[in-house]
Amino acid sequence: MKKIEHIGIAVKDLNTSNELFGKLFGEPHYKVESVASEGVNTSFFQVGPNKIELLEATNPDSPIAKFLEKRGEGIHHIAYDVADIRAEMKRLEGEGFTLLNQEPKKGADNKLVCFLHPKTTNGVLIELCQEIQ
Amino acid sequence: MKKIEHIGIAVKDLNTSNELFGKLFGEPHYKVESVASEGVNTSFFQVGPNKIELLEATNPDSPIAKFLEKRGEGIHHIAYDVADIRAEMKRLEGEGFTLLNQEPKKGADNKLVCFLHPKTTNGVLIELCQEIQ
Repeated sequence: MKKIEHIGIAVKDLNTSNELFGKLFGEPHYKVESVASEGVNTSFFQVGPNKIELLEATNPDSPIAKFLEKRGEGIHHIAYDVADIRAEMKRLEGEGFTLLNQEPKKGADNKLVCFLHPKTTNGVLIELCQEIQ
Repeated sequence: MKKIEHIGIAVKDLNTSNELFGKLFGEPHYKVESVASEGVNTSFFQVGPNKIELLEATNPDSPIAKFLEKRGEGIHHIAYDVADIRAEMKRLEGEGFTLLNQEPKKGADNKLVCFLHPKTTNGVLIELCQEIQ
């Protein structure tokens, strides 16, 4: 794993939180992107080599809507940048971690992604991501 | 803010979680440190320019013990590396964020730290940290 690529934060209202995180970092978000398959609108902030991804649900059945209902706003996942997502998925499955998708899927920000079940990772939802070339 | 310095993860048992995260990253933790004033034992993993800090409570009144009781294991805080912690504290207070300590205090890993109240940051406990020279 090369670095923390981003941290995903679940928010109720993207516009309100964009303003809040803009004040926090002293710089505005640099892009907004919708991922229809996940039922989310996202926005991204750059912090040196890392990013913060804000996640707003676009429908009540999306994972983010369920997370907000259960836990409220807050940190949703940590994404690690990996060089070869299929090799990492295979290695981690061999170590006993549970993959939430068996094939990499297309996520936000031009990435192939795979999630690990938080029950096998101390309650932390982990995303592996690899830039699509 | 220069980068995500580390992510703090609350765990029940440091030895068990050191083994788990060692498997996740494919590399063991590189140090263990106790912070008596916070009632925690910590361990650190390096992931490129970032770190993961595992936090185990050493007494039932420590903030980590209370977090575990309320939320269970999981992500506890995000720490951002700042060049001048006092200047950042002043700037953020001016922007309406609530500081949990008015003076920087000594944290783990040779850092001066200040926390922001999660009620003013979308439910995310944020730490500012600056390396002590």
